Amino acid sequence: MTEPGGRAGSAPLRFEGGALHVLDQRLLPAREEWLRCETPGEVAEAIAGMAVRGAPAIGLAAAYGLALALDEGERCGEEARVKVAEAARLLRGARPTASDLGWAVERGEAAFAAADAEGGDGGATLRESAQALAERRWDIDRALALLGAERFEAGDRALTHCNTGPLATAGYGTAAGVLRAAWETERLSHVWVGETRPLLQGARLTAWELQGLGIPYEVVADSAAGSLMAAGQVDRVVVGADRIAANGDVANKIGTYPLAVLAARHDIPFYVAAPLSTVDVTTPDGASIPIEQRDPAEITSVLGRRAAPEGAGAANPAFDVTPADLVTAIFTEAGVLERPYPEAIARVSG
Amino acid sequence: MTEPGGRAGSAPLRFEGGALHVLDQRLLPAREEWLRCETPGEVAEAIAGMAVRGAPAIGLAAAYGLALALDEGERCGEEARVKVAEAARLLRGARPTASDLGWAVERGEAAFAAADAEGGDGGATLRESAQALAERRWDIDRALALLGAERFEAGDRALTHCNTGPLATAGYGTAAGVLRAAWETERLSHVWVGETRPLLQGARLTAWELQGLGIPYEVVADSAAGSLMAAGQVDRVVVGADRIAANGDVANKIGTYPLAVLAARHDIPFYVAAPLSTVDVTTPDGASIPIEQRDPAEITSVLGRRAAPEGAGAANPAFDVTPADLVTAIFTEAGVLERPYPEAIARVSG
Repeated sequence: MTEPGGRAGSAPLRFEGGALHVLDQRLLPAREEWLRCETPGEVAEAIAGMAVRGAPAIGLAAAYGLALALDEGERCGEEARVKVAEAARLLRGARPTASDLGWAVERGEAAFAAADAEGGDGGATLRESAQALAERRWDIDRALALLGAERFEAGDRALTHCNTGPLATAGYGTAAGVLRAAWETERLSHVWVGETRPLLQGARLTAWELQGLGIPYEVVADSAAGSLMAAGQVDRVVVGADRIAANGDVANKIGTYPLAVLAARHDIPFYVAAPLSTVDVTTPDGASIPIEQRDPAEITSVLGRRAAPEGAGAANPAFDVTPADLVTAIFTEAGVLERPYPEAIARVSG
Repeated sequence: MTEPGGRAGSAPLRFEGGALHVLDQRLLPAREEWLRCETPGEVAEAIAGMAVRGAPAIGLAAAYGLALALDEGERCGEEARVKVAEAARLLRGARPTASDLGWAVERGEAAFAAADAEGGDGGATLRESAQALAERRWDIDRALALLGAERFEAGDRALTHCNTGPLATAGYGTAAGVLRAAWETERLSHVWVGETRPLLQGARLTAWELQGLGIPYEVVADSAAGSLMAAGQVDRVVVGADRIAANGDVANKIGTYPLAVLAARHDIPFYVAAPLSTVDVTTPDGASIPIEQRDPAEITSVLGRRAAPEGAGAANPAFDVTPADLVTAIFTEAGVLERPYPEAIARVSG
């Protein structure tokens, strides 16, 4: 982890020795600790507790978690079917909003079902399926990042939110991948990093990744985005996504929607960068996306220190929905999607 | 301080024993500690360090700070003039954005000049001038709060930002005074309190004050305001101000402008509540308001705990400017101001 931006050093997940090792992102950048998950339930807990987060990364974690339902070399059959179904249920329930999670579990289940139909090695099948997903993550991110970077022009200052780099994707990065590709092609001069309350993924994780890559940045309070835009200091906004509905509405980390509204007011392009696994054509629109409500303690305390008085109530929606009409373009590995989104999305999901 | 909402218990400043005692708001609600300021320089430091904050409260603190330039009973004359001028310079320079600060210092200087012309008691004059200001704070706030509350309707859910209650004004409260008056007249059902990064005045101070008053509230991340509004859970937004320009542009705590933009998108009334001492007709518009840039460490650390990696850069503008066209009404003790603001402001400032 000495080079957070590097290919090898960037992976927040390692599958070895019969366990999934999860870099505990709650402790970064202060401490690097790894959790050892030996069961699907332990992986589900790591996802629910946000030791691993970021839609693509929790998808991959879930794929490995499903693999842990069976021992290495365990054959298919009724017993394996029950174990896999139970693991799938646990993993799917870990967090409700990101579509990559359900997508990855479904993908693993399909691979298992195919092996099961032939009486094959269930354990090996699930491991290979997860491993194949891991190997594709870098290339998918890199493809969409290069497409996104083409929209940048020399000297651009971009604003981003939350964390969408290697820690979030176990790849090259989605929105942060776009920034990285724009930087490598000399089309980016500065990144404004929204700190991303409540869990400060921007200040803790994105800052750390950008620092490792040598990309100039400044962290700002989420609420400072408006005055930066009003002062003409933001040329593009680029964010990731947790679920993109069939109509192009985008669920992403709380605070994304205000950025989109402000960008529209200031005529600043607002981009979403996400792999196709984040696009869920079975969700018709943003109103149908389940929004996770997390523990109010994440609001009333910060980094373990109490802010609000004892007994204070708090609401903690983890995501918001940005309507498609505020999105300038969506960068995917299958191409850049633009309005009208329903048609564009149907085309790449077909 | 057992009743944060009460009249007696609410004062963040006490002048006694030849010193200004300042409740250190940086430590609330966890600890109640008072700073003893014996010189204008110590008061200026308490203001700059935000032990006392809120435009009306720092105005009052500055008035007392000016009084500390002279001993009790110290006569006017050349020596006193030099001391008062030096104190005024120190106090004015403590923070640049709030107009109440300069207004209060100027008011004290004028009282001193009048006494000086008659060879009077400079020390007594400055003390009496500050005391008179303190005594008017409650009535001014209460007057504008009652006017504001009239705009509320039974069941309203309001969103506010930062802290604008007794701690911020040494009175009844401005925006929080409006909420309090609306609650007392049964026109308010719930308050959404933006936590107000970086210094969390919403989570720490407003929550504490509302709790003391028994007003139902929930703290939210500043970035959650958009989704609350989109979900139809906000009926009014009401905020305070640090400076209102002659054209009606409003400088207030960073994050106010995004709330105004979001409120406009969702057709939610956006109110500003402030005494006339916050209106500065010598500032033509928002672009002319100096915006304080504070220590980046307020962003990279939270409540004393480091969030961002070592070496992380951060930008920390303390205020932003909301253009007058996004402001539905401004509540002052002299009446409710509405568009066109230049005329309305000229009328009450005349």
